[in-house]
This record gives sequence, C-alpha cells and structure tokens, in this order.
Amino acid sequence: MAKVVIVGAGVMGSALTIPLADNGHEINLWGTKYDQEVMRSIRKTRTHPRLGLALPGGLHLFALDELAHSVEEREIILLGVASGGIKSVMEMLGPFLKPGMVIVNVAKGLEEMGDGEIITIPQVIARALPQQLRSHIPVVAIGGPSKAREVAQRVLTSVVFASSSVRAAQHCRKIFTTPRYTVQVTSDVIGVEVGAALKNGYAIALGMCDGLKKREGVETMNNTKSTFFAQAAQEIALLSRMLGGRSATVMGLAGVGDLYVTSAEGRNITLGELIGSGLPAFQALEEMRKRRETVEGYPAIGIGYRLARKLEDSGKLRMNQLPLLKALWSILYQDKPAHEILFSLRLMA
Amino acid sequence: MAKVVIVGAGVMGSALTIPLADNGHEINLWGTKYDQEVMRSIRKTRTHPRLGLALPGGLHLFALDELAHSVEEREIILLGVASGGIKSVMEMLGPFLKPGMVIVNVAKGLEEMGDGEIITIPQVIARALPQQLRSHIPVVAIGGPSKAREVAQRVLTSVVFASSSVRAAQHCRKIFTTPRYTVQVTSDVIGVEVGAALKNGYAIALGMCDGLKKREGVETMNNTKSTFFAQAAQEIALLSRMLGGRSATVMGLAGVGDLYVTSAEGRNITLGELIGSGLPAFQALEEMRKRRETVEGYPAIGIGYRLARKLEDSGKLRMNQLPLLKALWSILYQDKPAHEILFSLRLMA
Repeated sequence: MAKVVIVGAGVMGSALTIPLADNGHEINLWGTKYDQEVMRSIRKTRTHPRLGLALPGGLHLFALDELAHSVEEREIILLGVASGGIKSVMEMLGPFLKPGMVIVNVAKGLEEMGDGEIITIPQVIARALPQQLRSHIPVVAIGGPSKAREVAQRVLTSVVFASSSVRAAQHCRKIFTTPRYTVQVTSDVIGVEVGAALKNGYAIALGMCDGLKKREGVETMNNTKSTFFAQAAQEIALLSRMLGGRSATVMGLAGVGDLYVTSAEGRNITLGELIGSGLPAFQALEEMRKRRETVEGYPAIGIGYRLARKLEDSGKLRMNQLPLLKALWSILYQDKPAHEILFSLRLMA
Repeated sequence: MAKVVIVGAGVMGSALTIPLADNGHEINLWGTKYDQEVMRSIRKTRTHPRLGLALPGGLHLFALDELAHSVEEREIILLGVASGGIKSVMEMLGPFLKPGMVIVNVAKGLEEMGDGEIITIPQVIARALPQQLRSHIPVVAIGGPSKAREVAQRVLTSVVFASSSVRAAQHCRKIFTTPRYTVQVTSDVIGVEVGAALKNGYAIALGMCDGLKKREGVETMNNTKSTFFAQAAQEIALLSRMLGGRSATVMGLAGVGDLYVTSAEGRNITLGELIGSGLPAFQALEEMRKRRETVEGYPAIGIGYRLARKLEDSGKLRMNQLPLLKALWSILYQDKPAHEILFSLRLMA
C-alpha cells in the first residue's frame, strides 16, 4: 500500500482516485482555492460535480489550509492542477517536499516562458522544485489517451508514464496499474509532451471537417479527416524528432492514440466545427469564451508555430514541411477562411 | 489527355471517373459479368446504383463482349475489380495488353495462394501478366484513405500510388491529380499493401468497443478505442517491417490514415459491434452473410495471423509482440468471448 496525495481536485486527478483506491492505496485529496466548490460537493455527496460520478469511500479530504498536513509522509504527489496553476502550486508545495517523494503529473504539453523559451510541463515542475531537491524528486508525466470520465468509470485505459527516471516511472506503474488502467513506461519525455501539446491543435483540423461538410453539402468527409490525421501524425513526429523525441512514441499511445481520442469529441473539435462551418476564428473563439470553454488546441498551435519558426531559423527544418501547422496557424491567428486554406493545402509528396 | 479504360464497374473504379473526367481524359468503362446490372443502370440513368451518384457525361460504355475494343490504344488500364476477381479478369485481359500500358489497381491487400504462400495484390497482378510483358507493364497500386462515394463527391481525398516503378507511379499521379484528389508516390508497395490488408482486420477491434460499451453500461469507450488504434498501428508497422516495408509508410496515409477512415464506419465496424455486444463470431458472421455484406477484415485477420506464425517460425518475431492480432484471431476464429479476451489483453510495455 502506498501513501498518495492528490494536489488539485480537477477531473483527471480525481478520476485517478479510482485505480488508486482499487489497488488499496491510502489517498489524500487537497483542492486549490479554485476547487473549493468541488471539494464542498465531494464532502457532501461523495460525487465529483464535473465528473458526475462518485469517488471512492476511503478518500481523505483536506481543507485549503491543510496542504502541509495532506502532503505529510506521502510517497506520491499526484499533481492534478491545470498547466497554468503548476508554478503557484509548486511554490506552495516546496516547503513540504522531501527526498524520496515522486511527483506524478497529469497536465500535459508545452509552456512558453516570458523570454520565449518553450519547455515541457515536466521541465516547468522540475525548475519549480527547491534547488536542493532537484535531483532527489523525480517527475513522472502521464501521457496517452485518457478521458477522465472513462478512467473513473473503469473503461479500459492505457497510458504512458514518461520520466527521465525510468525507475521512478516503473515504481509508479506498480502503484497505478489495475486490470482497467494499464501503464507503459518510457524515457521519451519530449516525445510524449510534444505529442500531448500538438494533438489538441491538430484535432481542430479534424473538427473543421465536421463544419466544412455542411458547407460542402456532403454527409461525410472521412477521406479529408483521415488525410489530416495522417498529416498531423507526420508533423508531430517531425517536430518531436527535431527536439530530441523518438518517432516510435508518435506511433504509440502518446501519439496517434492521444490524437485519436482527442479527435473523437471535445472542445478542440467544437471550435474546429464552428470555424469549418464558416465563422472566422476570432468569432468562433468568442463563442467558446461565452460558453466558458477554454480550447487547449488554440494556444498549442501558437506555441507549435513559434517552435517551428525557431527550428527553421536554426536550419533544422523548413516551414513547408509542416503545411498543416502553417494552415491552422493562418486560420486561427490570421482569421483566414478555413475552406480556402484547407482545400488548397499542399501536402508532402 | 490520356486514354484510360476502367475494367470493372465497382464503386471505386467508377468513382475514379470523376477526377479522370475533371482532368479531361478519355474514359472507357467495361463491366465484368457481375457488373451487368450496374452497367444497364449507368447506361439508362448515368447513375451508378451503388454509389447513388451520376457519372461523367463523356464516359464510353462497353458491352460484356467488347473488352478487346475497350482496351484498344489505352495507356492506363484501371483495374477496378474486387481482389477475388483479379486472376480471371487478368486472364481475359492478357491477349490485349501491350508494352507501355500501365495497370493501376484499386483492390488492396494480401492474397493467400493454394500452397499457403502470402503475396500482395500487385504481385498477383504481375504474376498474371503474360510472361513476355512482365517487365514492360508496370503495376501501380492505390493505397490510403479513400471512400469511393466521397471521391465521387469531390470530397478532398489524398491517396498513395505505390509501385516498384516510381516513374510509372509519377506518370499516373499527373493523370489522376485534381485539386480534390491528391496523390503521393512511394516505392514501398509492401508497406502499403500490408497496411491496406490489416487495417480492415484491426478496425473490427474498434467496432467491438461500440458493442462492448452497451454491455458495460457506459456512453463512450474512447480510451479503449484509442488504445486499440495505437496498438494496431504498432502491430501493422512490425509486420510490415518484417516483410520489407518501411515504418514511415505506416505513419502516413496508407497506414494510420487508412486505419482512421476504416474505423469511422463500414462493415468491419458493424461486425465488431455485433461481436462486442455479445454474439459469438460465428453468429455475427452469419448475420452479416444474411445481410449480404462481406467483411474484408475477417479473412485479413486469418491471413495476418498465419503470416505472423510463419514469421515466428523463421525466428523473425514472437507472437506475443502482436497481442491484438492474437486476440482478434481467437475471437474471430475460435469464437472466444470478446470481453474476456480484450479486457485481459497484455499490451507491450
């Protein structure tokens, strides 16, 4: 039995209480200041309001001022906050961290620093660790296709634990693996994070097909969707390779697997559909804001594009090797009409 | 302007009249004895009954006894017959073929010979050519995600022309390419054909999720589908590599692209859904036969499994590197219950 604290009561951290409880681990749950309504609801009904599902009975719930207490003697710190909240939560956590603890992280992707440097979320976490602990607390990132609600419903899910410390990732695999939540281990953190970030952006192109088909008066555009899917996989593989990731990762759960699950449904798809049906991007984004839905794929295309430009500047690739990224950028950031851009796309021959 | 004859009035050959006519080529269409009702309907209404769409006006239609006449002076023979009909049609065509002609083929995949040898469809065609013409008539195979109906509706489609003669493939690319039908060229015939054959089989696993979710009482099983999608890509890549294909092909249109389009809808998905919801395979196959629907993925799993066993016998791989293929084989050919087999699947770590 392991002692785990989940820091942040978002949907994914909370959903992971299910495999952890199925394995009999002792689980503390602490919510950030943004999670307090969720925590009240869990306290009262045992149900996570955004998951719409009951959490395990044995969960220990901690109040906002009890972070120190919740982290005490924990071997696993499961960081369940959104990427934007990681820095501030890491600052709060700092004083309570001890050598031997492992941080497991659910937020995925790339972050852009103030100076324009682009780093992975695990790097954000590692940099936020107290200096003297940096080589003593490994960070394990969860990649691969996992919708939180399905994890909580024990739908068969396979994920990737990525860490520069393969030993830490293997240890975590033992703790998290159940018959319905299976874990592969990789050291390719870059490949996993590049895939995780960009798949959200490329999924917008698949959503655009759902909008375009109405415009074109056809029932299906599966040929086009499949073209964009394959192109996205190739462009993610290229970018990942240029940054030091491995192609094999893109061929697996954290690449095409994650792209597939993201294409099935979600906010990226909805944004794409609005744009494909004829709205300029700024209007479609305004519509999503009204619905209070943040679309991860939008900033992902911005970061991906700037990353690609940097790689081009350093002579590592040419932008015309990434025609779909370029197309998405000009639709999303220059309000170009989706049908004009996508139907004149020149893919690699 | 090129002179083209389409041999066989199936849905894909007929759909390709659209890009060919858009490019102003002269098109003959000859139907096999099985196509005569279709030919009558086209003659009468210009509409292909199975496509439900009008074919180009300038099409020259030929009667069953006019094969010789239809092939005269053609530089492109577009073979539009199903894989099972290729040998007999090639025998009929033999006397009319001339050096300089190119055969473009739409049927995809692998065929098992009487002696157990497994070869690609382009090999079947090449072997059926008159001896003296074998090095004078190149065979170009069309791979990648293309549903015939969408091709005929000018939905943006991207395909792969694969040939050991890259020059012939490039020549055909010029003839077929339109703004809505784009063509990439590759020499990796093995990679394209292995992907084309096996994607049908692996799509059955994705269909099974649609059946299993009812059984499990959940609305979606996208995590599981994505797991199987990624696993299928990896297993196709492994098999293809062992036979001399390239991994990059699996990452492209003819691999994940084709797998994606096949997973969207179709008979393989329907068969999978029937089995996933609880029917043993033999009953589900009986049900499909009643509906007069042949399921390409079923024999594909049989051939794929026997191919893998041969590769294992020669020490090139181990069957447990292909857990999803093994699982599908035991569900489809040994009537094992899908939920038991799939939920206890051990994927590669």
